[in-house]
Amino acid sequence: MRMGDGMGFAAVDIIRAKRDGGRLSDEQIDWVVDAYTKGVVADEQMSALAMAILLRGMDAAEIARWTGAMIASGERLDLSSVAAPTVDKHSTGGVGDKITLPLTPLVAACGGAVPQLSGRGLGHTGGTLDKLESIPGWRAALSNDEFIRQLGEVGAVICQAGEGLAPADRKLYALRDVTGTVEAIPLIASSIMSKKIAEGTGALVLDVKVGTGAFMKSLDQARELAATMVELGKAHGVTTVALLTDMSTPLGLAIGNAVEVQESLDVLAGGGPADIVELTLALAREMLSAAGITGIDPADALRDGRAMDKWRQMIAAQGGDPDARLAVASETEVVRAPHAGTVAAVDAMGIGLAAWRLGAGRARKEDPVSAAAGVVLHKRPGDRVSEGDVLAELRTDEASRIPAALSDARGSFTIAESAPSLGPLVIERVA
Amino acid sequence: MRMGDGMGFAAVDIIRAKRDGGRLSDEQIDWVVDAYTKGVVADEQMSALAMAILLRGMDAAEIARWTGAMIASGERLDLSSVAAPTVDKHSTGGVGDKITLPLTPLVAACGGAVPQLSGRGLGHTGGTLDKLESIPGWRAALSNDEFIRQLGEVGAVICQAGEGLAPADRKLYALRDVTGTVEAIPLIASSIMSKKIAEGTGALVLDVKVGTGAFMKSLDQARELAATMVELGKAHGVTTVALLTDMSTPLGLAIGNAVEVQESLDVLAGGGPADIVELTLALAREMLSAAGITGIDPADALRDGRAMDKWRQMIAAQGGDPDARLAVASETEVVRAPHAGTVAAVDAMGIGLAAWRLGAGRARKEDPVSAAAGVVLHKRPGDRVSEGDVLAELRTDEASRIPAALSDARGSFTIAESAPSLGPLVIERVA
Repeated sequence: MRMGDGMGFAAVDIIRAKRDGGRLSDEQIDWVVDAYTKGVVADEQMSALAMAILLRGMDAAEIARWTGAMIASGERLDLSSVAAPTVDKHSTGGVGDKITLPLTPLVAACGGAVPQLSGRGLGHTGGTLDKLESIPGWRAALSNDEFIRQLGEVGAVICQAGEGLAPADRKLYALRDVTGTVEAIPLIASSIMSKKIAEGTGALVLDVKVGTGAFMKSLDQARELAATMVELGKAHGVTTVALLTDMSTPLGLAIGNAVEVQESLDVLAGGGPADIVELTLALAREMLSAAGITGIDPADALRDGRAMDKWRQMIAAQGGDPDARLAVASETEVVRAPHAGTVAAVDAMGIGLAAWRLGAGRARKEDPVSAAAGVVLHKRPGDRVSEGDVLAELRTDEASRIPAALSDARGSFTIAESAPSLGPLVIERVA
Repeated sequence: MRMGDGMGFAAVDIIRAKRDGGRLSDEQIDWVVDAYTKGVVADEQMSALAMAILLRGMDAAEIARWTGAMIASGERLDLSSVAAPTVDKHSTGGVGDKITLPLTPLVAACGGAVPQLSGRGLGHTGGTLDKLESIPGWRAALSNDEFIRQLGEVGAVICQAGEGLAPADRKLYALRDVTGTVEAIPLIASSIMSKKIAEGTGALVLDVKVGTGAFMKSLDQARELAATMVELGKAHGVTTVALLTDMSTPLGLAIGNAVEVQESLDVLAGGGPADIVELTLALAREMLSAAGITGIDPADALRDGRAMDKWRQMIAAQGGDPDARLAVASETEVVRAPHAGTVAAVDAMGIGLAAWRLGAGRARKEDPVSAAAGVVLHKRPGDRVSEGDVLAELRTDEASRIPAALSDARGSFTIAESAPSLGPLVIERVA
């Protein structure tokens, strides 16, 4: 029994209710999210509640209310001044996932307005802002006014989320990261959707990753997360569709920062790895459809250079030089095939870890990342190799980082006698 | 995947292991308890771990190691200079539970040395130190040297635990209180046993309460807690026995501070309520047996005044005046029977809450308690009443506290047409 009537005690009652498998009332959710944002509910209380939510779950109504409370903790942008239909994309994060880079200008070139608020990388998955910062002069921080103006004028903007959007989520996300409470579907879904809804987009396409390199290791989990987010979007008036896509293998050949920008430029130039092109087009088609734009094939916009033009405009609008030389690493090393055969698997998690060890990612929020560091794959699943063939190239500014990365990269390749059966890249659509 | 090698990351790995239902290794337990005590593991990390432990459990080996790590966080007292066999008692807490007051001098009068380190009340259960502080001059704080000297010279000492004993437990207990993680059997058992083992007692008798007024609401939970603690005691070389006793009805007639001291004096004078005498003697017999003291009936020591003499000696040794007048409340109110019948139940939780509302307990650690406040029952289960008979008397220093307390006290009485079937006070023995 709790005796006091104070605020701290209300928090304990809420924690206990969820701990014991109960559902939280609308009033409890509104209060606890608001009080946590204001510092009335302490970090140690919210982390206990987050663990209880992770282990006990939340029903659809609780998740919707929780998301609403996170949106209400800050401002909600008004994009009504933008003439073109707004449509955004969010990926739950994977290795080599640079799709936002070609996709944003591509959709803008086809008539959509893409208000892409992105994050930085932490751990084995890279961050879109980190990648773009390898372009000399490009700046991630825009004011709300700059953001809305560029969205109207260029139709494409990728920048960091302002402090005013879903501050409850910013605080809770940092807490979950250090308390083992990241992997709770209600908390992942409400975190993603509160930011996207507060950002003001009219439509949203979700790329929910599944596989060894993703947060969601199983298809069932990914399906549940996708369905939860689609419902949340609809409940808040945002047309929302999700694709479940494979993240057992890295996307494309480049994993890092500058190397991923270069690969994105290849795609915008009409080339690039087949899987990147496939996923970029699949997501672009969903985004155009969700935005109500018909009769335009985004493949044409890649071929004829309109997407590349839009890219250059978008980069330049944020101070970046689209013609600048990208950073090149001073140290390289190669991973060679130990014997002949067929590449059966390239483990996304292992390659992500190798790139991280080379300096492409950060262990702590305040760490810098290296623009030049990363991994470039020379072989992918299904490729035949002879003994001694180069499987991958490691790049870094610090030679001391190579041995550990080499070990991770080597361990990521499985070479078998016969060809593997490869699953589809786009597994399922949830709408 | 966690990338860093820092301390914070080790904590996350431990939280995740328990969250996912795994068992913690000896090294993980030793590290996390030590690191938490030193502030390397943050409160928000330990609260997430505590919630995971509450919901996922710990096996016997994990609980033993956790207890050992909590003991190792501080000093362990050496009572070998005390000639008499040392034996202590611990109650898991109930309403009206003043048993420590008559029991400690009683066992000392029979040849045991009782090193009773007690706590203060929080919430609906009173604290032994709060009760004794209603005796003018009595002081709860002793140095380790004073504690051991009094134990040797008087054979009985009730005082607050020093800062040096199980500091990990002190910190964790305060955290659990505000994070909804009190009710975890592994954490309750290790908290109690780490303090008792560090205190240095040779034998220990546990009074595990079960019922509406106790932490353990069901007999199964109480049994599990008792068995866990008995095993922990044995593993650390402390002869340990537990009695499961009923806490659906308050113990005795007095619930508060000075009123409980007065009732204890009645028992030491050879009188007092039958249930208090019964439980005091049952626990005294277990303690003497556990200490290897045979051939002495503690009932004799109550009858012939030896226990009272020891009480006076014990109180005086800590500056208390055994002849001082105890505080008397300025305001009183009575609860009357609404109709004739037989008292079927007196709810311990409701009466505990009423006494708390009158000022006998505290809502926050830093709050003072009133010596005079409390509830005195006039009727107990099985008593016949006529309409208008006084069921209980409420006492307080502040009239404004009466209405809410009156409502709780009234609601605690169930009056039926026929006599209830009353269960035994001592339900079961676990050894």
